[in-house]
Amino acid sequence: MDKLKQRILEEGNAAAGGILRVDSFLNHQVDVMFLQDIATEFMNYFGNREITKILTVEASGITVAAFVALQFGVPLLFAKKTAAANMESEYYQAPVSSYTRGLDYNIRVSAKYLGPNDKVLIIDDFLAMGSAVDGLCEIVKASGAELVGVGIVIEKGFQPGGKEIRARGIDVHSLVIIEELGDGEIRFR
Amino acid sequence: MDKLKQRILEEGNAAAGGILRVDSFLNHQVDVMFLQDIATEFMNYFGNREITKILTVEASGITVAAFVALQFGVPLLFAKKTAAANMESEYYQAPVSSYTRGLDYNIRVSAKYLGPNDKVLIIDDFLAMGSAVDGLCEIVKASGAELVGVGIVIEKGFQPGGKEIRARGIDVHSLVIIEELGDGEIRFR
Repeated sequence: MDKLKQRILEEGNAAAGGILRVDSFLNHQVDVMFLQDIATEFMNYFGNREITKILTVEASGITVAAFVALQFGVPLLFAKKTAAANMESEYYQAPVSSYTRGLDYNIRVSAKYLGPNDKVLIIDDFLAMGSAVDGLCEIVKASGAELVGVGIVIEKGFQPGGKEIRARGIDVHSLVIIEELGDGEIRFR
Repeated sequence: MDKLKQRILEEGNAAAGGILRVDSFLNHQVDVMFLQDIATEFMNYFGNREITKILTVEASGITVAAFVALQFGVPLLFAKKTAAANMESEYYQAPVSSYTRGLDYNIRVSAKYLGPNDKVLIIDDFLAMGSAVDGLCEIVKASGAELVGVGIVIEKGFQPGGKEIRARGIDVHSLVIIEELGDGEIRFR
């Protein structure tokens, strides 16, 4: 997606440790008009498949996933990172490690909202080590739903998540793949 | 908003401790088509004011705020709850206590994305004790931006947040106010 590459080059900030900051338009301040274009890209790729639910994990994947859900006309479901009193007691759970936060936690989806009749498209903003997407795939499997594919805005091709998930036969569509992230330098695959 | 009252009565679940579960359409599974109607209600109320940014806090306020931002044609900005390596080092910060999670934490907004030229509408899904909205107001003030108002989907009128924030002269618009939440009973103001 050329427009996305351009914004990453213009506004992205390559920080130490393979970190890419795109918080001017994607995961802190959010350009919602641009996210609609991003959602359209996922619609172009997955639009001919039957999808009943868009699944993501809080927090920064939520905006993209919401606009994708709107284009598909199906509910959004976001996995929660913390146990809360306003959550139902029966849920699917999977462990996740966050690379950017240096934290391990469990993500949870209420068993009420995912089941064998669902056809699920997972959407997230980043794919790097693949831990969040792995956790979401595990939850989809535990629920008996069908996993249609995974849509990612920015994949870090120099980290192994995308390769490993594709090797399991899952259809992963990333709008851009970053091959190398150096000292202020960003190179796309 | 009658449609919202109806969905709360049909799908909401009053749990112990003044908790209202609306995770079938608002804060876990999300009915994105319905959220567009909700965003329109905020547009009807705040649409004649100049607004440059929609501000919320992760995670469950993000979907509503994203659709409001889309209708206003301005960026969404969501405060973060945890420090992350992909966040800039200069930020505004405020303490928040979560009633439903039983946690205290700091919320942060990068100083790059909020300043004296901004006119801010705060959007959140719930208003109860008011701690999250208080924290967001504190961040708006620290940045020098103008606070235009606060839009809330569901206010718990039996908890003091709404009253206290209105008493400071802030324009709080809640789409529904719940007066009483009992054993399976929900009564609106």
